[in-house]
Amino acid sequence: MNVSVIGAGSWGTAVANLLAEKGYHVKLWARDGQLAKDINRLHHNPRYLKDIQLENEVEAVNHLTEALKFTDVIIFAVPSHAMREIVKSVKEALKSDPLIVSLTKGLETDTMMRMSEVISQVMPAQSGKVGVLSGPNHAEEVSLHVPSATVISSRRPRTATRLQEMFMTPYFRVYTNTDIIGVELGAAIKNVIAIAAGISDGLGYGDNTKASLMTRGLTEMTRLGVAAGAKDSTFAGLSGVGDLIATCTSQHSRNRAVGERLAKGASPAEITRETRMIAEGINTCAGINELAKKYKVEMPISRAVYEVIYKSKNPYECVQELMGRGATDELDMLS
Amino acid sequence: MNVSVIGAGSWGTAVANLLAEKGYHVKLWARDGQLAKDINRLHHNPRYLKDIQLENEVEAVNHLTEALKFTDVIIFAVPSHAMREIVKSVKEALKSDPLIVSLTKGLETDTMMRMSEVISQVMPAQSGKVGVLSGPNHAEEVSLHVPSATVISSRRPRTATRLQEMFMTPYFRVYTNTDIIGVELGAAIKNVIAIAAGISDGLGYGDNTKASLMTRGLTEMTRLGVAAGAKDSTFAGLSGVGDLIATCTSQHSRNRAVGERLAKGASPAEITRETRMIAEGINTCAGINELAKKYKVEMPISRAVYEVIYKSKNPYECVQELMGRGATDELDMLS
Repeated sequence: MNVSVIGAGSWGTAVANLLAEKGYHVKLWARDGQLAKDINRLHHNPRYLKDIQLENEVEAVNHLTEALKFTDVIIFAVPSHAMREIVKSVKEALKSDPLIVSLTKGLETDTMMRMSEVISQVMPAQSGKVGVLSGPNHAEEVSLHVPSATVISSRRPRTATRLQEMFMTPYFRVYTNTDIIGVELGAAIKNVIAIAAGISDGLGYGDNTKASLMTRGLTEMTRLGVAAGAKDSTFAGLSGVGDLIATCTSQHSRNRAVGERLAKGASPAEITRETRMIAEGINTCAGINELAKKYKVEMPISRAVYEVIYKSKNPYECVQELMGRGATDELDMLS
Repeated sequence: MNVSVIGAGSWGTAVANLLAEKGYHVKLWARDGQLAKDINRLHHNPRYLKDIQLENEVEAVNHLTEALKFTDVIIFAVPSHAMREIVKSVKEALKSDPLIVSLTKGLETDTMMRMSEVISQVMPAQSGKVGVLSGPNHAEEVSLHVPSATVISSRRPRTATRLQEMFMTPYFRVYTNTDIIGVELGAAIKNVIAIAAGISDGLGYGDNTKASLMTRGLTEMTRLGVAAGAKDSTFAGLSGVGDLIATCTSQHSRNRAVGERLAKGASPAEITRETRMIAEGINTCAGINELAKKYKVEMPISRAVYEVIYKSKNPYECVQELMGRGATDELDMLS
C-alpha cells in the first residue's frame, strides 16, 4: 500500500515513520524543497524529531504529483489555516480514489468548520472515506515507541476499522469511534484549555487549580460538543479528556507553553513570532468563541483565553474571575 | 457554630484551619494525646503541613467527649479502615444532632461499603445529614490558599447546600452534587488508577502512556459507578476526573508514589512499612476488584493493580497486557 503524508512537521514525520515500520511505502511531502532533500540525504528530519532515524521506506518529496502517485491513503498533517488550500491542490493533482486521514487539530477560522468538513467540502467524492486520528499522542513519544493509545474516527464504520488496522502497532493502540464531531471538537478545544492550564502554571498556581480548570474545561467542551451533535461520552475518551490531560500536563505541549508565556507578560504577537511551530489554540479560541455564541452555550474558560489573547485582558484577573463565579450545582453545568 | 474535625492528618488539619479562618469554633481531635498538646502549644501541626500557622480558633483535643461538646458539624478525616470504629465511639459520646461530613476516600474492605454508608449504618438517625467532600484538593495547596475547586455531595439537597455555604471561600470553590454514590466511588477508585499511573511513571513511560491509562481508568471507573447506581456525568466532574488528574499528576500524591515504588521493585509490605501516611489505594483495589465481580463489569486496570499488589505480578507485564488487549471501539467500553 502507498501512503502520502502531506506535511513534514513533527506529527506528520512520526506517523510517516510508524507506517513505514509497518511496511507501507510512504511519501512524505514537505512544502520546503530543501527540507525534503535533507530528509532523504540524512534519513532523519533535521527540523523535527531530530534524533529519530527514519525508515528507508519514508521518501520525502516536494511535488504533490509525486507525493500522490498511486496513493491509497492520504494523510493530512498541516496547520489548520493551511488545510483548505492544500486540500484543493491535492484534489487537482489526484488520480486515484484514496482513503483520507486528518491529523490536524483545529477549526477553520472564518467558517468554524472542522477539518473533516473542510476536506469533505473540497473533495465531496471522498467524504465517506475521511477519517481523523486523535488522542494523547505527543509525536516525540510515539516516535520513540512509548506505549500510547489513540482514536480513529470516521462517519463510516468500515472506514474507521480499515484505518484502525492500518495504524495499530504493539506500542500504538488504536480505538475506533464513529462520533467524528466529538473527536474533532475535543481535539480543537483541548488546545484552548491547555492555554488556560499554561496560564495557571505561569501564574504559579498549583495542581489543584490546574486540575479544576481542566475539569471545568472538559465540562464546557462537552457542553459545546453535545450542542453541536456530538456524544458526551466521546469527551470522556482518549480524544477528549485523554488528549486534554496529555496536552495540559506535558512539557511537550506548545499550547500549554503559550499560556505560560502569556501569564508571564509576553504578548500573543511576540509568542507567535518566536515559535516556529504553530500553537493551534491561538487561532482556535476565536472560532470556539463564535461556536459558543452560535450554540448559546456558556464557555467561561475558552472565553477567558480568547480575551487574554485578543483583548489584552490580564491573565491573573481571568483566573480570579473563573474561581469567583456564583455557587452552583456541578451537574447544572452540563444542561 | 461549633465544628468537630475527627482526625488530625494533613487534610483534617487543612480543613480545620479553613473553617477556623471563616470564624467557626473548631475542635480538632487527634488520636495521639501528645500531638494534640503539641498543636495547641505550637499553633501548628508538627507532623503534617508543618509550615502552616494554625488559627487560634483551632483547638486540638484528645478526648472525643471534649471534641463533640455542643457540636453542630462533625467532619470525619480518618483512614477508611478506622472509620467504623471511630464512628461508633462518636455515636456513644454524642449529645447533639449534627450534620456530618466525610473527607475519607476509600471503601471498607470487608463490606465494600462507601464511607457515607458506614456512617449511616452506625448512626441511622443522621443518615439524611451526611455529606461527603471530594475533589482535586491537595491539603498542602488548600492550606496555602492556592485556588481549588471541590464537590460537596449529599443525598439530601438541603444538606448539600448548607455544607456548600459552610466550606466556600474565595480560594476554595464548592459545587454541590447529589450523586453521592458517584462522588464516593470516584474518590475511591482514583487512588487505584493513581497507583497504575505511578507504575507507568516508575517504568519510565511517557505522558502519552499515562494519559491513556488515566482515560481508560476513567472509563472503568464510570462503568462500575453506573452499574452501582451513579450518574456517568459525576465521573466527568471534579470528584471524578478532576481528582483523578490531581492525584495522577502530582508530586503530592501518596498513591502515585506507591505505584512508582512498585515499578522499581519495592514490595507492598516494604512500602506500607516505610510510609507514615496511608495510601488508600492499596486497600481499595481489593474492594474494587470485588465490586467489579459483583456488578460484572470489566476493570482491567484496577485488576492489574490488584494483581501487582496482592499476587506479586510483574508491573511491566501488566502495562504490556493492558496495551495489548484486542482492538475495540472506544465507546463499547462504556456499555
